[in-house]
Amino acid sequence: MSRLSAWGVVGFPEVKPGDQLADMIVEACRNEPNGPLLDRDVLVVTQKVVSKAEGRLVAVNPDDPLSHKALVEKEAVRIVRRRGDLIITETEHGFVCANNGVDLSNVERGQAALLPKDSDRSARRIRDVVRAKLGVEVGVIVSDTFGRAWRKGLTDVAIGVAGIAAVLDLRGTPDALGRVMQVTEVAIADELASAAELVMGKSAGIPVAVVRGADASWFREASVQELVRPPQEDLFR
Amino acid sequence: MSRLSAWGVVGFPEVKPGDQLADMIVEACRNEPNGPLLDRDVLVVTQKVVSKAEGRLVAVNPDDPLSHKALVEKEAVRIVRRRGDLIITETEHGFVCANNGVDLSNVERGQAALLPKDSDRSARRIRDVVRAKLGVEVGVIVSDTFGRAWRKGLTDVAIGVAGIAAVLDLRGTPDALGRVMQVTEVAIADELASAAELVMGKSAGIPVAVVRGADASWFREASVQELVRPPQEDLFR
Repeated sequence: MSRLSAWGVVGFPEVKPGDQLADMIVEACRNEPNGPLLDRDVLVVTQKVVSKAEGRLVAVNPDDPLSHKALVEKEAVRIVRRRGDLIITETEHGFVCANNGVDLSNVERGQAALLPKDSDRSARRIRDVVRAKLGVEVGVIVSDTFGRAWRKGLTDVAIGVAGIAAVLDLRGTPDALGRVMQVTEVAIADELASAAELVMGKSAGIPVAVVRGADASWFREASVQELVRPPQEDLFR
Repeated sequence: MSRLSAWGVVGFPEVKPGDQLADMIVEACRNEPNGPLLDRDVLVVTQKVVSKAEGRLVAVNPDDPLSHKALVEKEAVRIVRRRGDLIITETEHGFVCANNGVDLSNVERGQAALLPKDSDRSARRIRDVVRAKLGVEVGVIVSDTFGRAWRKGLTDVAIGVAGIAAVLDLRGTPDALGRVMQVTEVAIADELASAAELVMGKSAGIPVAVVRGADASWFREASVQELVRPPQEDLFR
């Protein structure tokens, strides 16, 4: 297996509604001190800048927590659990997460950022513009920060993909002792998003990272829906 | 932010019960084509080799799936959900996972591997031997492969840590716009385990990886219990 490297793209400008995010990523990557993008690099782009560029911002009353809560309830497809200020919901994409992904951090006071309407499409647009303008074939992951039911702390996961598998299906592959493995479907897009988070740093505000060294076999047309557990498989509905 | 790199330690020998795993890791790292371990590297070691070295193997009837299931039920502290062949349990460590972490892959036919009794201690032993024999101060993570309630595909997570934070507490840290962030506790040990999984490869059978470039502030005494959600915070009991 090869070496994996990840770094945050430095000097990324502030993103505003209507900005051409893909063009901004191309420009930032052109000037990157770590050197140009290469074929089979994976670009990990945080949800926040995708939502901002796509104008997925709505006004909330910054002095009234109920204003945020009402927005969460309006946007959610289903309330999964509720306790105190915490609301776990299912989004229109099928993601189960806190506050329906509606986020107040790293946006202006008085605004909340909704998840992108279709993060796969957002990822494809970035992939296509990078291909057209830089002539390289990259995978793109739109990432967000989710909690887990039984583990404390948050990790970054994929909420959109383009040109890279979301889930790698190794079922039927022999293990190291030559036996067929019982499992394994590996959520590589989530693992790549987590690796990228480590170099972005929540407070540093770096919204784009490059991961280099992904296996050639991971690159294909894909959708983040590979990661969404269908209702009939959900043991916790 | 700096660059993160990860690679699998190649040429790692097969591990048997009673083997001195920490010594084997030291030897493998001495001969690594990627060069010697450095201070603040993170060693990620898969549960499977830790369990094998610690003799956490029990006999199961390879032709009777009920034999495996009976073992899972015997080891579990609590059955969380059950459907068909799938059993989600809580382990004695407080982890919620499939089959109580009892695994049949990458072990000899007729055997099953239990989770290490105390993976923090397993990690500390490796950290201490590396310090004593190689003179470098590393973080150690024992990793395993867990599913998620609402996302398909598995990711590697930490089940033991030494010398590196499991969860990073950024609550109260200003975000990029100077506002105090609402969240954020980042499960960096899980993210590091996920990054390492990407270079280990399930079928390649590489049980040890090195992650270089972790932030200096992440290194401290820690326990994987930081990642275990206490019952009173569990919305899905």
